[in-house]
Amino acid sequence: MSSTFVEPVLAGDRRAVARLITYVENQHPKVQAVLSELYPHTGRAHLIGVTGSPGTGKSSLVNKLVKQVRAAQDKSVAVIAVDPTSPFTGGAILGDRVRMRELSGDPQVFIRSMASRGNLGGLARAVDDVIKVLDAAGFELIFIETVGAGQSEVEIAKTAHTVIVVEAPGLGDDVQAIKAGILEIADIFVVNKADRPGVERTVAALQTMLQLGHASAKRVLHHGQLLSVSDGPAATEDLSGWQIPVLKTAALKAEGIEAVVEAIDRHRAHLHQSGELLDRTRTRLIDELKSSLQAELVQRLLAKLPPDYLTRLTARLVEREVSPYAAVQEMLVAYWPGVESKK
Amino acid sequence: MSSTFVEPVLAGDRRAVARLITYVENQHPKVQAVLSELYPHTGRAHLIGVTGSPGTGKSSLVNKLVKQVRAAQDKSVAVIAVDPTSPFTGGAILGDRVRMRELSGDPQVFIRSMASRGNLGGLARAVDDVIKVLDAAGFELIFIETVGAGQSEVEIAKTAHTVIVVEAPGLGDDVQAIKAGILEIADIFVVNKADRPGVERTVAALQTMLQLGHASAKRVLHHGQLLSVSDGPAATEDLSGWQIPVLKTAALKAEGIEAVVEAIDRHRAHLHQSGELLDRTRTRLIDELKSSLQAELVQRLLAKLPPDYLTRLTARLVEREVSPYAAVQEMLVAYWPGVESKK
Repeated sequence: MSSTFVEPVLAGDRRAVARLITYVENQHPKVQAVLSELYPHTGRAHLIGVTGSPGTGKSSLVNKLVKQVRAAQDKSVAVIAVDPTSPFTGGAILGDRVRMRELSGDPQVFIRSMASRGNLGGLARAVDDVIKVLDAAGFELIFIETVGAGQSEVEIAKTAHTVIVVEAPGLGDDVQAIKAGILEIADIFVVNKADRPGVERTVAALQTMLQLGHASAKRVLHHGQLLSVSDGPAATEDLSGWQIPVLKTAALKAEGIEAVVEAIDRHRAHLHQSGELLDRTRTRLIDELKSSLQAELVQRLLAKLPPDYLTRLTARLVEREVSPYAAVQEMLVAYWPGVESKK
Repeated sequence: MSSTFVEPVLAGDRRAVARLITYVENQHPKVQAVLSELYPHTGRAHLIGVTGSPGTGKSSLVNKLVKQVRAAQDKSVAVIAVDPTSPFTGGAILGDRVRMRELSGDPQVFIRSMASRGNLGGLARAVDDVIKVLDAAGFELIFIETVGAGQSEVEIAKTAHTVIVVEAPGLGDDVQAIKAGILEIADIFVVNKADRPGVERTVAALQTMLQLGHASAKRVLHHGQLLSVSDGPAATEDLSGWQIPVLKTAALKAEGIEAVVEAIDRHRAHLHQSGELLDRTRTRLIDELKSSLQAELVQRLLAKLPPDYLTRLTARLVEREVSPYAAVQEMLVAYWPGVESKK
């Protein structure tokens, strides 16, 4: 499979890219060998995560950003629209069609929707792998747009180099919106639908939150699994010295788009100059290593179990004869001997 | 630790319950032994997941449901408010205080907020363990309220016996809200804030979606990790024969609450009669077994690595000398010999 894909993907062949992504999504057993060959050629793309609550107009914003980047900078751009929800609502497909109409015909733009077909960890891993494919294929900017507003979407978006959090008027003054908890990961805030009433109130709410020191606590989220609150300076700067902007756009009218593209460029330059880029790359790779390790270990253990083992164990769990924790200990003693617990 | 906790928790001692939950949250190494002792006494509580987009008024609704259950049925009730976001926005704490005022003084009500302090998998596992504690302590109804609207919140909520999805006017007619993808897991829909304009439109949108057959595809999500679309009958019934109701409430005015409590009771009876309860319990326990296995395997492997192994490996990853996938294979060969891959 490597011979079929490695050279064409590295040459930027769109059909090879699209087909390899399909293999990634289907978890084809040979895909990891191809990705390992592509790996030395990755690490060049700038990854831009875009997230925010439903209804903020993220997709329209991303479309306009892509058009602006293409018009002003002539860089090649890929978009991964991650919809970690059911495939049968049709949202992803609808979104794709709208997009295709607006951006089709440009060979330097590649768009792909990814819907969850399994568990969350699987989707995050697949997104990581699709990023590798697009990166190796030479796309200079890769937007990773996540549809929801929950923890999983945050997890996916925060692995990007630059994280854009999109808000809209009418959400920002609600405690619930603050609770949605995507504020701490933002490098750039965009208040979209800025032609609607209440926009100044939303902007003011975001700026107040930044000044309350939330931004300074942010890097703790980025750089470790354990989240802790740091007593940083009360400023709109994060710990690496980046001044987090709050920008207004009206994506449907194409207003305010240039300023967002400019902020992305400034943030990219900042990441390079401050050394922050290396930190984020490192965090990203360690996370990826751990989830890959998890998947591999579980797969190998499950392969050792007799065919009806899980069925019988489940019956005992249902009867409350054994707890899940105790069942795991028992399973490891029986089917992975020599693996002593360190507890 | 078992002697300190097992008897008091089984007797329903609130202070013991609260302290044990804190140990669960802090991942105290001895907590699993206590949970294993409690496990035979679990499985009696009815678990009710409540989820929906930010701003739909889930917390107010849950408060009113608790009050209604207490007034009408005299059952003991626990609420786990899961906020899988940053602890420093203060949302969880604020929510708790509002609740304490409204429900305090009733010894048969127990409320606990849980915020994510680690990764998502960690939170889901902690919620599972807290449910065990509350179940063993004899709480008859346990509400699991999740704040966000993303995949992770869905994952947590869908392990419940009865899943309530909360919408509000002004969200339901938006494609984005449909994309948020929490519709397929609902056993009961509640359109809250029904005193606001647009409520009939939201109700109609939900009913149309149900009739389009989304509901019939639902059980596929519930009963397996791989999601598939089934060609069920175009009806508002799920595959087990449950008629999914769309109810209207105005939680702040305490309107429509009785009908929701009644629907929960009907669904509970349906789960017992149809055999669906056993299916859901089985799915829940298998999921729990797998995540427990994952955590245990990774922990054991990491304990075998030399102190600076991960640092050196990360440097090679950053230099793109080795891919995460290849690194995992290398790690397993070096530090877990005899564990052959089945690929």
